[in-house]
Amino acid sequence: MRKALQQARLALDNNEVPIGAIVVHGDTVIASGYNQVELLKDSTAHAEIIALTAAYSGLGAKYLMDATLYVTVEPCMMCTGALYWSKIGRIVFGASDNRNGISRFFDLRDAEALKQRQQWPFHPKTILEKGVLATECAALMQDFFKSLR
Amino acid sequence: MRKALQQARLALDNNEVPIGAIVVHGDTVIASGYNQVELLKDSTAHAEIIALTAAYSGLGAKYLMDATLYVTVEPCMMCTGALYWSKIGRIVFGASDNRNGISRFFDLRDAEALKQRQQWPFHPKTILEKGVLATECAALMQDFFKSLR
Repeated sequence: MRKALQQARLALDNNEVPIGAIVVHGDTVIASGYNQVELLKDSTAHAEIIALTAAYSGLGAKYLMDATLYVTVEPCMMCTGALYWSKIGRIVFGASDNRNGISRFFDLRDAEALKQRQQWPFHPKTILEKGVLATECAALMQDFFKSLR
Repeated sequence: MRKALQQARLALDNNEVPIGAIVVHGDTVIASGYNQVELLKDSTAHAEIIALTAAYSGLGAKYLMDATLYVTVEPCMMCTGALYWSKIGRIVFGASDNRNGISRFFDLRDAEALKQRQQWPFHPKTILEKGVLATECAALMQDFFKSLR
């Protein structure tokens, strides 16, 4: 997660919403990305999407069952959907985001009930962990939005 | 939608799941895309994503309020999220998809109720229309999956 935070700081340096992500395969970081919505003038250029695209390209594979994505902030619906298609083995996120995160639509504390009703938004085989370095991840976001006011 | 169907046929010619999309701005088709998951070895390379990326790039703008996306099949959760961020003016889709489409998670017939609870997955200003040339759009998909068996 420290490496994902480094990516988030790169976003911050470029006046982007400071979210960063890395993809790890075995012991190796195979891809990284930070939010580039402003730079690319593309509202879908989220850290996770950039990291996933780099991972596919690096591995030459369309699934990432053996990989872990670390991202500093809870994924949005788009990124959750992208992670679903990737069949990624594990997702670790830092700060929660009840405004733009997937938890606006799905209560992540209800995983078992949602899975039983086939309403869990992540891939059924993906392990989800949250709250890792959450304070640091959230502080970056708060500082950024404070600086805009 | 006929032009989106042409895109879907390009996907079919390349042994991809036959889904196509175009983005229209005024009277002009500014972007098009077809599913390229196999070609790019990228499980997120859906027709809508490719068309949106081309539209951002062509317009040099990160929002598409004045544009319409036509897509042959109901968007999945990832594409719905991407369309949310685009703030696109209008989405028209052909065939419904109760397996991979967003309606697996959200009952699209319940738009008003979902909007009131802030649980509508599309952007609140986006107009959604469905069922346009649905039979042709669905037939392409059925033929493709039949050919795989």
